[in-house]
Amino acid sequence: MARVPESETNIHKERHRAVLETAARLICERGYEAASVQDIAAACGLTKAGLYYYIRSKEELLLEIMSYGMDIFEERVLLQVLAISDPVERLKACMEKNIFLVTEGWSKEVTIILHEHDTLTGAARQQINARKRRYVHFLESSFEEAMREGRLRPVNPRVAAFSFLGQVLWIYKWFRPDGQIPAEQLAREMLDLFFGGLEIR
Amino acid sequence: MARVPESETNIHKERHRAVLETAARLICERGYEAASVQDIAAACGLTKAGLYYYIRSKEELLLEIMSYGMDIFEERVLLQVLAISDPVERLKACMEKNIFLVTEGWSKEVTIILHEHDTLTGAARQQINARKRRYVHFLESSFEEAMREGRLRPVNPRVAAFSFLGQVLWIYKWFRPDGQIPAEQLAREMLDLFFGGLEIR
Repeated sequence: MARVPESETNIHKERHRAVLETAARLICERGYEAASVQDIAAACGLTKAGLYYYIRSKEELLLEIMSYGMDIFEERVLLQVLAISDPVERLKACMEKNIFLVTEGWSKEVTIILHEHDTLTGAARQQINARKRRYVHFLESSFEEAMREGRLRPVNPRVAAFSFLGQVLWIYKWFRPDGQIPAEQLAREMLDLFFGGLEIR
Repeated sequence: MARVPESETNIHKERHRAVLETAARLICERGYEAASVQDIAAACGLTKAGLYYYIRSKEELLLEIMSYGMDIFEERVLLQVLAISDPVERLKACMEKNIFLVTEGWSKEVTIILHEHDTLTGAARQQINARKRRYVHFLESSFEEAMREGRLRPVNPRVAAFSFLGQVLWIYKWFRPDGQIPAEQLAREMLDLFFGGLEIR
């Protein structure tokens, strides 16, 4: 009867979670390459060998962090708006929620997804990219739907999707919570600009 | 008479230039933190001590690379459009030229400016940020001018500037020269979208 008692499994899970947290903080601050396995272990109060009890490799650690970031994004943005039947309202709500996710900046994991876009390789990269592509596809098909219904001007839905993403995701590079533009105002004005355009017709 | 002969100065300049080139390639491929001084020296065919004959520190090397990237950007984008008197035409030409600079992707130095936005510290950071701010300011004041003349809808010029930058600069993260959208088409459609907007009025 070599079953592990439930409390021990829970302790392992909690520690694993704490390792991910600490690693995400270091990677967010220093970048993936600069945050060494040694640094991560030390920050967790573990030896390198002790750290490898919780993770299989540094790249798998990054994959876990990014997967958690994608969970947060899907929960706070995508799942909140999927059910909105009007495609223009759906896109607007999506832009607003995505702006708030980036401006609040509380998620190290989301920041890591944005910054370390080119770091993963092989199957891990495929896995995250597939989830990112689902988001691009959701945007493209919402734009297409809105255009089919005559709600938006006919533009290239792919260019629209990447323009949407560019405006919203670039925010992580320049936005400061104590800056001139509060997040609510930014969201309102960016939506007005993106959907309303600039030229007087 | 300890004057260095001109040919020797030229050889030093050429080697210094070659060091910057090689360092930019490594930093572009691996990221600033991961490209060690040792790696850069080895790629230049130099010892570490030999490399320090051409550079003062790794951070100063990054500053030199970024300054060169800003030179390229200013030469190929900003200086090309500054003299256009119509503010809307100026902004459109600027967006087009900036899109081409990013899609052509030939400049490792420009890519490093976009990716390593948070890496420099202290005076070096101030120096690059001042040049970036000049660009933001140029965009803001062009938007203001266009709005004053009743050529564009009244929107927040700062939000307009950062939305412009987000659409254009995010391109470095997703654009592939062999992808579905050629650079010329992307520029045309992104301009139409940004200035024309999406909603049918």
